[in-house]
Amino acid sequence: MHEALRDEVCRMNIEIARLGLAAWTSGNVSGRDPASGLVVIKPSGVLYADLRPDTLVVVDLEGRVVQGDLRPSVDTATHLAIYRSRPDVGGVAHTHSPYATSFAALGQSIPACLTTLAMEFGGDVPVGAYVPIGGEAIGREVLRVAGRSPAVLMRVHGVFTCGATATAALKAAAMLEEAALTVHLALLRGQPETLPPEEVERCYRYYHESYGQQTPASLPEV
Amino acid sequence: MHEALRDEVCRMNIEIARLGLAAWTSGNVSGRDPASGLVVIKPSGVLYADLRPDTLVVVDLEGRVVQGDLRPSVDTATHLAIYRSRPDVGGVAHTHSPYATSFAALGQSIPACLTTLAMEFGGDVPVGAYVPIGGEAIGREVLRVAGRSPAVLMRVHGVFTCGATATAALKAAAMLEEAALTVHLALLRGQPETLPPEEVERCYRYYHESYGQQTPASLPEV
Amino acid sequence: MHEALRDEVCRMNIEIARLGLAAWTSGNVSGRDPASGLVVIKPSGVLYADLRPDTLVVVDLEGRVVQGDLRPSVDTATHLAIYRSRPDVGGVAHTHSPYATSFAALGQSIPACLTTLAMEFGGDVPVGAYVPIGGEAIGREVLRVAGRSPAVLMRVHGVFTCGATATAALKAAAMLEEAALTVHLALLRGQPETLPPEEVERCYRYYHESYGQQTPASLPEV
Amino acid sequence: MHEALRDEVCRMNIEIARLGLAAWTSGNVSGRDPASGLVVIKPSGVLYADLRPDTLVVVDLEGRVVQGDLRPSVDTATHLAIYRSRPDVGGVAHTHSPYATSFAALGQSIPACLTTLAMEFGGDVPVGAYVPIGGEAIGREVLRVAGRSPAVLMRVHGVFTCGATATAALKAAAMLEEAALTVHLALLRGQPETLPPEEVERCYRYYHESYGQQTPASLPEV
Repeated sequence: MHEALRDEVCRMNIEIARLGLAAWTSGNVSGRDPASGLVVIKPSGVLYADLRPDTLVVVDLEGRVVQGDLRPSVDTATHLAIYRSRPDVGGVAHTHSPYATSFAALGQSIPACLTTLAMEFGGDVPVGAYVPIGGEAIGREVLRVAGRSPAVLMRVHGVFTCGATATAALKAAAMLEEAALTVHLALLRGQPETLPPEEVERCYRYYHESYGQQTPASLPEV
Repeated sequence: MHEALRDEVCRMNIEIARLGLAAWTSGNVSGRDPASGLVVIKPSGVLYADLRPDTLVVVDLEGRVVQGDLRPSVDTATHLAIYRSRPDVGGVAHTHSPYATSFAALGQSIPACLTTLAMEFGGDVPVGAYVPIGGEAIGREVLRVAGRSPAVLMRVHGVFTCGATATAALKAAAMLEEAALTVHLALLRGQPETLPPEEVERCYRYYHESYGQQTPASLPEV
Repeated sequence: MHEALRDEVCRMNIEIARLGLAAWTSGNVSGRDPASGLVVIKPSGVLYADLRPDTLVVVDLEGRVVQGDLRPSVDTATHLAIYRSRPDVGGVAHTHSPYATSFAALGQSIPACLTTLAMEFGGDVPVGAYVPIGGEAIGREVLRVAGRSPAVLMRVHGVFTCGATATAALKAAAMLEEAALTVHLALLRGQPETLPPEEVERCYRYYHESYGQQTPASLPEV
Repeated sequence: MHEALRDEVCRMNIEIARLGLAAWTSGNVSGRDPASGLVVIKPSGVLYADLRPDTLVVVDLEGRVVQGDLRPSVDTATHLAIYRSRPDVGGVAHTHSPYATSFAALGQSIPACLTTLAMEFGGDVPVGAYVPIGGEAIGREVLRVAGRSPAVLMRVHGVFTCGATATAALKAAAMLEEAALTVHLALLRGQPETLPPEEVERCYRYYHESYGQQTPASLPEV
């Protein structure tokens, strides 16, 4: 397992706490090693302040612990179900970020009424049905509703995001919470208009073609 | 008194400020030493920035100061009433966290409309009647309404939580505030459905059986 | 001028930013030296990150600069009007803390529907009329409506608080914002009951007699 | 290019993250060098934690990269359109700060119902029409609606601010968000009165004549 991946996954788990995306130890981020196909994930119930690269757990795609003395996150089966079906995904994040989760609590998608939503999520952020926590069924529901969105709201529960890397997955989680907060505020005072589909499309393409630094295809962008 | 307990109680008091669970000096955490039965608690009106393990006050279960030069928290009698009736409790926390306290201000319980609430609190978070601050009557009211919930909202006042350790008590306070915020947001925009009792039960059992690291029964889990 | 007072006033000005009680450079705290009667106050428009004890400005009660190379806060005349009329006041703070200021924007007092409000503020937090910024007229309006409350909401503007020390003034500002947030949340979802006057009285007396550490009368309490 | 300008622009970009004015990498600040007329701006998609003065990009007013190995912000053309038309502007900032952006989502200006708004923005904060991101058309729309306001809300998108320096531009962004939050809260509970035009004028003049430190005209004030 590359040290760089352990470092990245550790840092992104700590970002959950720093950005306020989940209370105490309840969020988690994982990353997949492109070479071995193994997945690095947060151990269950460990405080973010106590997390170090070498306390992370390495599992294979069937959930067998390959490295590490601790039990992996209770959401591991969910992460793995996503990795197994989506070879393009190299990172998964799970949060309970409050503004996004308030939409999940009501079974509401987040409408694409901000350019940020069109650019990063490619349209409305979809909401999945309620599925009991801990199994791979929740991962299948994420996959069923995601479409091209890197984020899915899971009813009564929270948020799952994915991306080419663990960093990209956490980026989606951070941008989702800001957008959810903004849309919540607007909904309390009025009815924001959603962007028409062709403008959503234009924003999405513009963002994916122009944003960030040019990097070789083999290096997933932040 | 074990140094480790002093350190833990000090750290958890400082977490109150870091997590924004009470303004200025108005929250407090205590922990019980399993060997001696003595309780370590925050001194009254001391800034979190000035708190050190050796400025904490040690009291017995009747409230007599056993160690320390400072006066203990004005909420000490409340903490002790809980410890005397609940041998399973090794830590108590008191906060005024704003989202949870807004439910207390209205005399409303927090409905179990999120998996987090079902898992950590085992159902709705109950609300106790108004009881004047400072005496053990407030502790008795917490005990009367708590059931299996580690958190109780005290009407017009704030939050009391308990757990196997001071850390577990603060964990309940932190997770309560995140859940209260999320439910508040959902209530402003709609009517979130509560989980059916059998699903609450399943979540609660799953969480208490599967979450965190396997630890010997004599070591309370974080 | 005692170094300790400069240090305290500097630290409390920095707390404004750390606690989010005013954006950029727009809040300020001052403290009065009991021996000389001189007042130490924040210089105008200086970033909190650049503030040091020796950049503070010392003025007499008529506003003449006695020490310091910088211009004092534009709110200096307001602070001084309070000091001249209230010998019991040793510290004044001014913030634009958003939740409290939202009550000021609507010309609403904050009702005593939380024990914190009864204990720290002795009842509803009063609101003063709109008075143009910068003169002593605003200080006279604060004095006119304050009663025993250490905090006054100034219409369309923000918050002024006072106390025995600069620290006590900032404490009132910090506790006010937490209470304003909590009451705001409750008002969005219902109608919180205010405490009856006799219970407000009991809370206020209890708090002022029991809270904090016993200190000689000559040493104002934190 | 002066090192001092690189340092200032770098520091102000980092302030975006520290003050929570944009998620992940989505905000940006630029500054213009008075001597050369060149503009320093954030590179696209670089994490604030990884930003250093020497990773910033220097462009001329037509957008040609003059110094730096990275691609400049996708909003560069917008910044430059503002600089070309406004010789008084030495700094531009772009944020998605949630409370201000919620007004942009609804196409609402922020009414001058707080002294802060009158003083810093000279009246209501205007809102521009929706313009696709990335081109100079968005800069022209900012200029069309700005008037004397240092901030403009861009519909469905976010916030653009400008000032004599990069620091002044970020100051406007920070003060805007605090005011937007306060006005949002007041609007949820009532109808705040706006200041009459002559009082807005008085506040604006008072603030620009009295606030801050006296500095030579050649040194733009913070």
